[in-house]
Amino acid sequence: MTEMQNPYLMFLGDVEDQLAAKTAKGIVDWRPEWCIGQLKLAGCVADLGIEDMTIAEGIKNGAKTMVVGIVNSGGFLPDHWISVIVDALDAGMDVASGLHMRLGDVPEIKAAAERNGRALFDVRHPSRNLPTGKGTPRQGKRLLAVGTDCSVGKMYTALAVEKEMRDRGMKADFRATGQTGIFIAGTGISIDAVVADFISGAVEELSPENDPDHWDIIEGQGSLFHPSFAGVSLGLLHGAQADALVLCHEPTRTHMRGLPHQPLPDLKTCMELNLTSARLTNKNAKFVGVAINTSALKEDERQAYLAKVEKELGLPAVDPFKDGTAPIVDNLA
Amino acid sequence: MTEMQNPYLMFLGDVEDQLAAKTAKGIVDWRPEWCIGQLKLAGCVADLGIEDMTIAEGIKNGAKTMVVGIVNSGGFLPDHWISVIVDALDAGMDVASGLHMRLGDVPEIKAAAERNGRALFDVRHPSRNLPTGKGTPRQGKRLLAVGTDCSVGKMYTALAVEKEMRDRGMKADFRATGQTGIFIAGTGISIDAVVADFISGAVEELSPENDPDHWDIIEGQGSLFHPSFAGVSLGLLHGAQADALVLCHEPTRTHMRGLPHQPLPDLKTCMELNLTSARLTNKNAKFVGVAINTSALKEDERQAYLAKVEKELGLPAVDPFKDGTAPIVDNLA
Repeated sequence: MTEMQNPYLMFLGDVEDQLAAKTAKGIVDWRPEWCIGQLKLAGCVADLGIEDMTIAEGIKNGAKTMVVGIVNSGGFLPDHWISVIVDALDAGMDVASGLHMRLGDVPEIKAAAERNGRALFDVRHPSRNLPTGKGTPRQGKRLLAVGTDCSVGKMYTALAVEKEMRDRGMKADFRATGQTGIFIAGTGISIDAVVADFISGAVEELSPENDPDHWDIIEGQGSLFHPSFAGVSLGLLHGAQADALVLCHEPTRTHMRGLPHQPLPDLKTCMELNLTSARLTNKNAKFVGVAINTSALKEDERQAYLAKVEKELGLPAVDPFKDGTAPIVDNLA
Repeated sequence: MTEMQNPYLMFLGDVEDQLAAKTAKGIVDWRPEWCIGQLKLAGCVADLGIEDMTIAEGIKNGAKTMVVGIVNSGGFLPDHWISVIVDALDAGMDVASGLHMRLGDVPEIKAAAERNGRALFDVRHPSRNLPTGKGTPRQGKRLLAVGTDCSVGKMYTALAVEKEMRDRGMKADFRATGQTGIFIAGTGISIDAVVADFISGAVEELSPENDPDHWDIIEGQGSLFHPSFAGVSLGLLHGAQADALVLCHEPTRTHMRGLPHQPLPDLKTCMELNLTSARLTNKNAKFVGVAINTSALKEDERQAYLAKVEKELGLPAVDPFKDGTAPIVDNLA
């Protein structure tokens, strides 16, 4: 995928709740300087807390890409959004979407993009030809966030590590493997959407050879312990050839996401299997820290929990949202 | 995928060596009664050792499907094969192909299929909509062949186990996950070609709930230790929810297939990781035997090697091609 051009005009359509704008909110949280305004249709309930803008105002303010950062059930594009997307293309913006339905599959949108020489980005659909993974060592350092489950903060953790490294003047690039991450990075590969044969190859492409002191901070997906998605997680782990792993966990989760019958692994078991698997392509792989999403814990519970994890695992344990990731980055030295 | 109708007329085109007909040869080996004849073009070097037949003769002998069981570099369909495929459709046969290029993407072939109401099967391309895996236990028994590497005899082993079980009057069905297997079973899913999110879900679909005493004998793919394809192997393992695992190995292999830098795992290490992973979706998973491809060993080496493996692992070790799989099936009781 070529890189999406920013700034972004954030299109929210007329979605009926804030959760539908979760992707858009993630982009605003991590790249506020790229998100110059939001475009809402009548009836829209979601709000990103940024300036409302028409397409014309977006153009005047320099918007290069209109982002459809919406998750709706079915992933389809409502008919009454089409004319707005066509207007954005006619006004000179590219359009990027995280919906399952491809923008280019809508004839009016395809025609408008061609007529105006604009690009369409469907971030859920990998567009480049991928090789199979090779497992050949490559220069540069890589850190991968892995999880006990899906949706435990792997993207957040990776972005927080990138930020901490950049604040210290280190060379670091977040490498996105999911749709929200791709909007935030401007590029990436939706790893769960590639053909199974190319999972590890896609990650090798995404985090290529680099300077010896450069860190790729790779967004993890799923969990080796999730029966639906573990294949994706393993291919990602092998392709990443991670030098450093960060374990992500949400301590109040009672079962694997979406599977009420499936228990969560304990942290040590999860680390062991990840480490055994990671060492297939990088013998020096090791865990450097633990990232806990403590949002559901009270302050005293939270401190006690982090202290317990640090003691049990002998690794720095932080909530990246509340504590940052400095102890983890310190531990890389 | 709906089931392909047999008997098959085996189309060999004008391929330049016997290896290009490996898929076709596998079908003839395992389903000789389905393969009523072969159709070769001028210059064809491969031969299946069955009767040569024209399309008209194939029809007269009852052929229902013409099978393009050829592997050529690039997986494309040579232009001069198109008219033969069109002729087969016009004569009333379906056509099935294992090439990367889809039959239906060739306008003349698509038109001929429509005109005659015939079906086109592209076995490399999963055609059904797949769910994500759930990991919910389902009735029936399942056996999965896993390997130290790719191409170590997993399909052969699974087919030999199916045959042994059926010979004993047991309920058993081979479940195909690769193209040759799909031609042999008449149905199946090319598991390395599904979108990564659906690997385990595809295998759950392929081996659904069944009678308590029914065995699905599932064809494995790749290896948990192959850096290119381990994600596929893990999803397959989770989706299979195997009660019984058979380890497949080729003892003279010096490195993982296609990757000169990558060593093979030893058998015990390979079994341990497979077992740990399998138990995520079936706590009772266990190894019931070892299948060794001994074709590169001398007779005395072969016997000594099998005896050594039996002793070290405490499991029956056989070469399915030479010894059959009776000791493995005995061990299921």
